[in-house]
Amino acid sequence: MIAIDWGSSSLRAFRLDGQGQIIDSRRSDQGALACAGRFEEVLRDTLQSWDERVVAMAGMVGSRQGWQEVNYLDCPAGLDEIAARMIRVHAPGLGDREVWIVPGLSVRHDHGVHDVMRGEETQICGLIDRLGPGTHRACLAGTHCKHVLIENGRIQEFATAMTGEMFQVLSEHSILGRLMQPGPHDAAAFLKGVDHAALDGDLLEHVFAVRTHGLFNVLPATALRSFLSGLLIGHELRRLPARPEPVHLIAAPSLAEPYTAALTRRGHRVQAHGEDVSARGLYALARRRGLPAA
Amino acid sequence: MIAIDWGSSSLRAFRLDGQGQIIDSRRSDQGALACAGRFEEVLRDTLQSWDERVVAMAGMVGSRQGWQEVNYLDCPAGLDEIAARMIRVHAPGLGDREVWIVPGLSVRHDHGVHDVMRGEETQICGLIDRLGPGTHRACLAGTHCKHVLIENGRIQEFATAMTGEMFQVLSEHSILGRLMQPGPHDAAAFLKGVDHAALDGDLLEHVFAVRTHGLFNVLPATALRSFLSGLLIGHELRRLPARPEPVHLIAAPSLAEPYTAALTRRGHRVQAHGEDVSARGLYALARRRGLPAA
Repeated sequence: MIAIDWGSSSLRAFRLDGQGQIIDSRRSDQGALACAGRFEEVLRDTLQSWDERVVAMAGMVGSRQGWQEVNYLDCPAGLDEIAARMIRVHAPGLGDREVWIVPGLSVRHDHGVHDVMRGEETQICGLIDRLGPGTHRACLAGTHCKHVLIENGRIQEFATAMTGEMFQVLSEHSILGRLMQPGPHDAAAFLKGVDHAALDGDLLEHVFAVRTHGLFNVLPATALRSFLSGLLIGHELRRLPARPEPVHLIAAPSLAEPYTAALTRRGHRVQAHGEDVSARGLYALARRRGLPAA
Repeated sequence: MIAIDWGSSSLRAFRLDGQGQIIDSRRSDQGALACAGRFEEVLRDTLQSWDERVVAMAGMVGSRQGWQEVNYLDCPAGLDEIAARMIRVHAPGLGDREVWIVPGLSVRHDHGVHDVMRGEETQICGLIDRLGPGTHRACLAGTHCKHVLIENGRIQEFATAMTGEMFQVLSEHSILGRLMQPGPHDAAAFLKGVDHAALDGDLLEHVFAVRTHGLFNVLPATALRSFLSGLLIGHELRRLPARPEPVHLIAAPSLAEPYTAALTRRGHRVQAHGEDVSARGLYALARRRGLPAA
């Protein structure tokens, strides 16, 4: 079968063998936000020369702005519930292929506050498939990071932290960015930021230290980006209870290192997983759904 | 004398009588960031037909990017210390006028974290002049809000919260802004944000509620800006201890109302002051400095 993680800004396709092992993969910047009106065409081009019939997709492709909206499924939810809510997309231009989309998940916190994910649920399904039963905590790093509690094969609850996007808007559009100069990742400045985030005080106050550390030469201008990154990731991690069990980190290679450093600094054990858990999750879901050849 | 509050993005000039009362005022958008190389000329034009000799200025005009840099003065500091560190600017194009700039203040928190203000110290001097001795807490609303502890006529310590700038970058440059639709200030949505900020959790998580409140129609798209505003101001106010004494609020008219609403919601008594405390502060400082005709 073919597994596709089709997010807002990129598309990753995996060709899987009969046991769900990745035998080939493709990547493009044809994200769901850029594909309005031509999803079928982009998918057809992406799959050229791969002749597997079943295509299972996850991510923003199933959002209101995507190919076809698939309603959020409420937590707690496990692989069976998620597989049962997959929908088949009408895709005549793809011949006899069967194209499916996985639903996103929602959760309702206290005080009537909702949270949502789309795409990450499939990565977590891959993680569940790998880890088996028990209680697990996962951290999915990215533009909008997800912290997830898994209990006995079901996604119990989760919360989103806008860490990546906050980093982007503050470094590109705020006064903090004006003092920054380009430079390589500065591990010491990054950890200084992680430690700073553990101090009393709100993020609104802490971020001003990026400016004053620059003004008072506490850090060189080339280290301020790393400091801000550590400060934000450190704030995100404030929510994590100290526990002996590992945190399962799912992150792109560029984020795996800083997140591992920050989690370790806070006393967490880290078990890192590649983003290909997404393919594993799609394979496991397709099997639960009983899709042919999966 | 003439009192000038010359910030990054605007200039406000006050003509004062011999008792420090405002008898006239002018305002322009010739902020210090836009005036590089022509401060003297802008000031000359601003003062046309006002013939007072002494001109006392505060704000970013005294920063590195301003007319002339005046070093930060360390806290604690009162009117005497601040007045003693005012410097006179060389301004031959202004004839026999005496042009002075007030220093900004700095403070060093624990863990080697600095904080700074420039312009606000003069507003606080006006407040001190008005309130007299004792312990007072002040909140200066704006792009970078300042929370200040005043003890017996001296600025003891302060902290900056980037509330206003955070509101701007999130509503203009993040995914949160995409769901927002223009609308009048929504007082109920604003207070919902203030209450949300009092819940457990970091700002990085709380801001995602702007998105989900929109997605799940908890709030109409026209109310999301007010919700975000309340959420951010509510986070800023987390630091304020509950006390019977009033919080002295210094805010532009557009911010006085929401800040008063948020402070009241949190159980604080509010005493509001207009931004003209700046002119009062400059007058008090000029007197301490012994400037002629002040």
